[in-house]
Amino acid sequence: MYVVKSPLPEADLKVVSEALQGALVDLVDLSLVAKQIHWNVIGPRFRSVHLQLDDVVESARQHMDTVAERASTLGVSPDGRAATVANSSGIGEIHAGWIKDEDAVGSMVDSLNAVIGRMRERVAATETPDPVTQDLLIAITADLEKHHWMFQAANG
Amino acid sequence: MYVVKSPLPEADLKVVSEALQGALVDLVDLSLVAKQIHWNVIGPRFRSVHLQLDDVVESARQHMDTVAERASTLGVSPDGRAATVANSSGIGEIHAGWIKDEDAVGSMVDSLNAVIGRMRERVAATETPDPVTQDLLIAITADLEKHHWMFQAANG
Amino acid sequence: MYVVKSPLPEADLKVVSEALQGALVDLVDLSLVAKQIHWNVIGPRFRSVHLQLDDVVESARQHMDTVAERASTLGVSPDGRAATVANSSGIGEIHAGWIKDEDAVGSMVDSLNAVIGRMRERVAATETPDPVTQDLLIAITADLEKHHWMFQAANG
Amino acid sequence: MYVVKSPLPEADLKVVSEALQGALVDLVDLSLVAKQIHWNVIGPRFRSVHLQLDDVVESARQHMDTVAERASTLGVSPDGRAATVANSSGIGEIHAGWIKDEDAVGSMVDSLNAVIGRMRERVAATETPDPVTQDLLIAITADLEKHHWMFQAANG
Amino acid sequence: MYVVKSPLPEADLKVVSEALQGALVDLVDLSLVAKQIHWNVIGPRFRSVHLQLDDVVESARQHMDTVAERASTLGVSPDGRAATVANSSGIGEIHAGWIKDEDAVGSMVDSLNAVIGRMRERVAATETPDPVTQDLLIAITADLEKHHWMFQAANG
Amino acid sequence: MYVVKSPLPEADLKVVSEALQGALVDLVDLSLVAKQIHWNVIGPRFRSVHLQLDDVVESARQHMDTVAERASTLGVSPDGRAATVANSSGIGEIHAGWIKDEDAVGSMVDSLNAVIGRMRERVAATETPDPVTQDLLIAITADLEKHHWMFQAANG
Amino acid sequence: MYVVKSPLPEADLKVVSEALQGALVDLVDLSLVAKQIHWNVIGPRFRSVHLQLDDVVESARQHMDTVAERASTLGVSPDGRAATVANSSGIGEIHAGWIKDEDAVGSMVDSLNAVIGRMRERVAATETPDPVTQDLLIAITADLEKHHWMFQAANG
Amino acid sequence: MYVVKSPLPEADLKVVSEALQGALVDLVDLSLVAKQIHWNVIGPRFRSVHLQLDDVVESARQHMDTVAERASTLGVSPDGRAATVANSSGIGEIHAGWIKDEDAVGSMVDSLNAVIGRMRERVAATETPDPVTQDLLIAITADLEKHHWMFQAANG
Amino acid sequence: MYVVKSPLPEADLKVVSEALQGALVDLVDLSLVAKQIHWNVIGPRFRSVHLQLDDVVESARQHMDTVAERASTLGVSPDGRAATVANSSGIGEIHAGWIKDEDAVGSMVDSLNAVIGRMRERVAATETPDPVTQDLLIAITADLEKHHWMFQAANG
Amino acid sequence: MYVVKSPLPEADLKVVSEALQGALVDLVDLSLVAKQIHWNVIGPRFRSVHLQLDDVVESARQHMDTVAERASTLGVSPDGRAATVANSSGIGEIHAGWIKDEDAVGSMVDSLNAVIGRMRERVAATETPDPVTQDLLIAITADLEKHHWMFQAANG
Amino acid sequence: MYVVKSPLPEADLKVVSEALQGALVDLVDLSLVAKQIHWNVIGPRFRSVHLQLDDVVESARQHMDTVAERASTLGVSPDGRAATVANSSGIGEIHAGWIKDEDAVGSMVDSLNAVIGRMRERVAATETPDPVTQDLLIAITADLEKHHWMFQAANG
Amino acid sequence: MYVVKSPLPEADLKVVSEALQGALVDLVDLSLVAKQIHWNVIGPRFRSVHLQLDDVVESARQHMDTVAERASTLGVSPDGRAATVANSSGIGEIHAGWIKDEDAVGSMVDSLNAVIGRMRERVAATETPDPVTQDLLIAITADLEKHHWMFQAANG
Repeated sequence: MYVVKSPLPEADLKVVSEALQGALVDLVDLSLVAKQIHWNVIGPRFRSVHLQLDDVVESARQHMDTVAERASTLGVSPDGRAATVANSSGIGEIHAGWIKDEDAVGSMVDSLNAVIGRMRERVAATETPDPVTQDLLIAITADLEKHHWMFQAANG
Repeated sequence: MYVVKSPLPEADLKVVSEALQGALVDLVDLSLVAKQIHWNVIGPRFRSVHLQLDDVVESARQHMDTVAERASTLGVSPDGRAATVANSSGIGEIHAGWIKDEDAVGSMVDSLNAVIGRMRERVAATETPDPVTQDLLIAITADLEKHHWMFQAANG
Repeated sequence: MYVVKSPLPEADLKVVSEALQGALVDLVDLSLVAKQIHWNVIGPRFRSVHLQLDDVVESARQHMDTVAERASTLGVSPDGRAATVANSSGIGEIHAGWIKDEDAVGSMVDSLNAVIGRMRERVAATETPDPVTQDLLIAITADLEKHHWMFQAANG
Repeated sequence: MYVVKSPLPEADLKVVSEALQGALVDLVDLSLVAKQIHWNVIGPRFRSVHLQLDDVVESARQHMDTVAERASTLGVSPDGRAATVANSSGIGEIHAGWIKDEDAVGSMVDSLNAVIGRMRERVAATETPDPVTQDLLIAITADLEKHHWMFQAANG
Repeated sequence: MYVVKSPLPEADLKVVSEALQGALVDLVDLSLVAKQIHWNVIGPRFRSVHLQLDDVVESARQHMDTVAERASTLGVSPDGRAATVANSSGIGEIHAGWIKDEDAVGSMVDSLNAVIGRMRERVAATETPDPVTQDLLIAITADLEKHHWMFQAANG
Repeated sequence: MYVVKSPLPEADLKVVSEALQGALVDLVDLSLVAKQIHWNVIGPRFRSVHLQLDDVVESARQHMDTVAERASTLGVSPDGRAATVANSSGIGEIHAGWIKDEDAVGSMVDSLNAVIGRMRERVAATETPDPVTQDLLIAITADLEKHHWMFQAANG
Repeated sequence: MYVVKSPLPEADLKVVSEALQGALVDLVDLSLVAKQIHWNVIGPRFRSVHLQLDDVVESARQHMDTVAERASTLGVSPDGRAATVANSSGIGEIHAGWIKDEDAVGSMVDSLNAVIGRMRERVAATETPDPVTQDLLIAITADLEKHHWMFQAANG
Repeated sequence: MYVVKSPLPEADLKVVSEALQGALVDLVDLSLVAKQIHWNVIGPRFRSVHLQLDDVVESARQHMDTVAERASTLGVSPDGRAATVANSSGIGEIHAGWIKDEDAVGSMVDSLNAVIGRMRERVAATETPDPVTQDLLIAITADLEKHHWMFQAANG
Repeated sequence: MYVVKSPLPEADLKVVSEALQGALVDLVDLSLVAKQIHWNVIGPRFRSVHLQLDDVVESARQHMDTVAERASTLGVSPDGRAATVANSSGIGEIHAGWIKDEDAVGSMVDSLNAVIGRMRERVAATETPDPVTQDLLIAITADLEKHHWMFQAANG
Repeated sequence: MYVVKSPLPEADLKVVSEALQGALVDLVDLSLVAKQIHWNVIGPRFRSVHLQLDDVVESARQHMDTVAERASTLGVSPDGRAATVANSSGIGEIHAGWIKDEDAVGSMVDSLNAVIGRMRERVAATETPDPVTQDLLIAITADLEKHHWMFQAANG
Repeated sequence: MYVVKSPLPEADLKVVSEALQGALVDLVDLSLVAKQIHWNVIGPRFRSVHLQLDDVVESARQHMDTVAERASTLGVSPDGRAATVANSSGIGEIHAGWIKDEDAVGSMVDSLNAVIGRMRERVAATETPDPVTQDLLIAITADLEKHHWMFQAANG
Repeated sequence: MYVVKSPLPEADLKVVSEALQGALVDLVDLSLVAKQIHWNVIGPRFRSVHLQLDDVVESARQHMDTVAERASTLGVSPDGRAATVANSSGIGEIHAGWIKDEDAVGSMVDSLNAVIGRMRERVAATETPDPVTQDLLIAITADLEKHHWMFQAANG
């Protein structure tokens, strides 16, 4: 059986792996939600919002890779399958169909807000068991919060 | 209410939009499945398979954008949300956890096979109602079949 | 006298060359119309529309080169001179002077709509006489329809 | 009504805006003429002339953008529509159909000569009312004259 | 024994694989013929023809890769060995030794003409059994015909 | 003591150095003002204005380098320190705090207008004493006026 | 009124926002001081110091953007205007006029030393209220300290 | 005598400098060990392992530069000479001669494991005396652990 | 008749031209053989071998151009036609059909071995008559021997 | 006989062509002088001066091309042959042999000073007969004066 | 006095330094001759020859740098000043004024022929005293001979 | 047991492999010595020397890869481990601690001198047994001698 020499004791590993799996699911869903709105947004701000959403997609895709590979690095198998994402994401359901630019922006503010709240808890939870993982989560949080500001400012 | 001036009559549009929505779901799932295995593969061929899977991810992400934006172009709202993908993808369930390189390759052969079969049906279905959409689906099929070969050859 | 060894019989060539010459004129005019509005647009969406129009210009310029060189390839001299364009373009007249962003977007929706309708006829007309030409026209149509969606969405 | 805070008094503005509108029309036409010959040239020097013409097209397209945006900058709406170009260009009519490489070169010498003569008058006319506009026109003239030399040398 | 899950029934596969093998041989030979002339051309148009031939080489090399990998994709082993090419190419024999630029151009017109004629037959033959393969062959044909024009124009 | 061999006589040098020092201060301040608004802008046009302001920052930074190094070239020490800028800039005070997108655009129109007026005086003043310096100032003025147009058009 | 959903409680936010505003002012001033010396340095080490100073300018500009946007992200309006910088920067006054290379290096050692001391206090102050902000400040401090070493080594 | 103004008190500096010197030696040796195996590996996985080892070399070289320059930044002379490395590296001796791919991978797992254990101790040791140094060491640890996973997975 | 001013006397030229013609044929065949196996390889090392073979193709294509143009430079017409290659290559026949990765590697070891042996003879033969040609052949030999090692190591 | 249609009357052309021929000779010589010192400089500032001189070489080479092609553009044959340069350059003789860095810098200050003085006369002379040529000479002068400052500052 | 530790004994050094100084002069002159013709060529092959000459200029400039720096490396001061070049170049005088394309090509054949003959003597002369220098001269000769072929072929 | 088909007889191989192993050790050590000084240099020429040393590091790293892989190519296992380097390098010991720029340069002159002397012996030794290896060693020697000159010139 495949076992990675994890640098962390068992108890710490449990905390860290939950944080990473949770972050993975949120980030995969964030990438799907942002793409969904990217395709469905309409209204005078179409082009700006359409492009801004792809910036989020690119961020989310890079971050999901970082956290999934961090999990593998610690010997914990990451799970980013569609059903897992659908069942455990921290982002609320996005309605189907066309979405007005203003609502698109509002929807992203809410989605990012939900993810950021959970990410900050993960930053706190991983500080003692694994500062290496915490450092990755802090950098991701900083980036998500920047996107969060930009959508808020756009509806300011 | 937002209505796009679609160049297709209603009946044709229905056929085409079903083909595009189906293709979208398959391609989003393909990108998630390939990433899942990319993170979980182990074995002597780890590096080759790990990299080969990212080629599939890149293809799938480009193709999903193409079909979703084609749907929007025809005035049909695309749906690429996690739950929709989880419920309607043509790819069978992938087991969680580490996966041996040989099984990883086999799993990709099966997943691509499932998608290709459905894509070929969509190519046939769209020929008359919209050769423009058909042309996009043909190009996607050609690319998926090339990936399919490469994984088969790798287990040959 | 210069005669190209055309791979098509005379009757087929006539159909195909009319399609190509028509497409050429429409595409040259589309590039000029989009530039005209690019320079004259005003209003809060100025920057978005200004940039979006240059995407159309770039597309139109590439496509006009493709169709003109396809005509030459078949031994038919293409005609993209200003007077020919002014006289036979399928795009209606654009008013001179400053244009509000909303009207600019509407004007592009109409212009693209006019060209797309004619391109679809050309796709149908060339299918039997020359599938090679048809394939080029299909790809151009797909691209124009994508621009068409983006402007519609922007006024959605 | 949209009015730009022009840095120029009314009388000066009139002179400058005529120079810019004239330059715009000549440059749009130059780009169309060079493309027309690019597609229709034949003869042993085909490849050289074909490529050299695209250098002119690229120059003309950049310069037309410069002068049109300079007009907008001064609060004067530029007009680069096909009919306007067909009616007021300083370049004589180019015959339709295939053109021998030697004649193609000669035709470009004549076309550039016509535009350069008018550009030099515009340089002189704008010196006092607006040295900023003059500076742009001088740079464009230098570039056109360089193309002019290259075609003359090629028929030398 | 290695067997690819081909998406085509046996009879269709036979037609398609013959088309692909034939195209492969023609394209490999085209790349060798163009290089041969690239090295042996002399005369006042040396540099133009020398460079133009390398454009053909680059095209032919990309296309041969496309058709060979398409064959592999369908489970048919491609054969691009020197002897196979020498025996079954559709291009007539090229004489050894220096070749005047005018004759070099004429030789390429003939070689391309021979290949194009066979490619058009393959396009027709593959339409029903495999539109995916046909689409690749159409794109290759379009590119070869463009090269064909350019050499004809150069001797025009 | 360090003395540069200036190509200008003393009296001319005085005029030119005042023009350059004034331009330097205006351009440094323009870069700070544009960044300030870049960080504080809110409203539906957030993204467009945010990006457009960085175009101004980039222009201003390049131009400030040009004029400062031109001063050094003529043997005159340039002064671009914060206090100097705060005391002698030609741009009026910008209010602190968040700024609505429409006001942001208006504020840039005013700031650019103030700088352009002074730059045109410098262009006039340097014509006789140093055409080399004048040429640099003309190019900077052309660029600032283009930004000026774009912000006016955005509030048009 | 525009209010950002800040992830921090009020008291924490006050500490963090003071740290960010202080950092912003120091970094803007650092960029101006380094440019000032970049333009005024003389002596045998001119080229080395001239280039080394632009490395500092580039760093300072990137860091000022990071901290200002971090403030906006937390819902605090950043203030980087010239007068604010002139009044509250932690860098002592730089004398006007030419500066010998050795003094230029010494001046940068002092300026960087002043900023680094304050940055280390901000790193300490933000640790508890916002580790995300702290992480950004740590990275900036590391970079400034590296520049500090390089100037010290250059006068070593 | 050359003394850097270190931002750390003497006691803290001692701890930090030992951590940095230790990290430097480990990283230089890691780069040499990985190159040694890169040149000597044989077996069916030759190419994968050969390339994967160069990824480690590149990482190790970047990290060694970071820690050595951090030491210099704190006023501590770094020592990366061959004899120092040979005497104090934390990596066990690598046998000379050809090495089978499987053993090569195992050897890298062990080498990375040894370095990671020591890096984690350094992360802990530097937290209080210098969070800036700690932050650099955390990032290096994260990267080494990722390489560690990849080699473990490859023997999984 | 076209005669190049060759810098070599007749006898030397004969030796050198035979070396170059032989090298040309071997290198063209090497490029075809490597492509053939690139398309037909199967087995767990598929991806590694598939990519490694394209490195050989790229090398062989560059080298064949070098030697053919060296022949032309010396006034000797090079012959790289398919039939010439099929008849005079130093590489033994490669069997048609799918080839297991291990056999593919073995086949390349043999093919490279055959070419290298002949290249070393050419290096020896050209030393006295033309050190310039010899220098080119030495560089090609070094590169082929490096490929030779890599395939041997892969079957080690 | 080859005659270019010059846009200038004979008398003006004479003035302008003398200015251009003089500029050409000075610039060719400047490129040779800077290279000469680039190869012969020694002393502690070797690397800085060695690199700085190549910046001058690059500038001089670009400018010489500009003025020579401007002459051709006006129908005047430019003369940049070694003997012409040796006989009519405005730069004084440079001594052969190694040159200390300080003297190298001084030598460049003198050489640039000589060329700049002559360029300023040419700027004045061409203002009336050809503002297009004048504009090119002004830009070259600005660049040479910047190099002049940098060498003066380096000996300041 | 500056003395380089030359790796060569005095007698060998004398032979090698003469070869390098001779090569330097020839290559500087070749770059000037090729530029001279680049500016003065006329005729139907203008563009081809104009571009081909710049390839020679680029080669000559790189090679002159190589040989001059090789001389410096051996402790011998290189001399590439205009007068030295004018007096000792191996290339015969080029006539001033416009030159027909055919004569331009012939002139380059002669110039290259003259330089190549001397380079081959230098290759022979340096073999024993310094194989390192010889290797550089061989590579330069190979490149010049390739240019020589291309111009001969162009007049073939 | 792994045995490479070496193209050299046993006796020749022994000479060549000693030359390669010696070169490998010298080059690895050169890269470490240059990095050591890169980190420890101080003084007014800090930046120039710091950068110049990284040029040596880059060269040494490329060359060590070349010689190690050449050894592997000939079937001889290369040994570049730290202890081997520490024990058999031809470079004398470098003192630990800060080093003044002048001494740094002197130290590099000595180190390069030591390596070059040995490389020249290897060039001589390998000429007969393997001209391919000799050619690689000649190119490396040329590059090292160029670095040697640049450091001597910098202390000239």
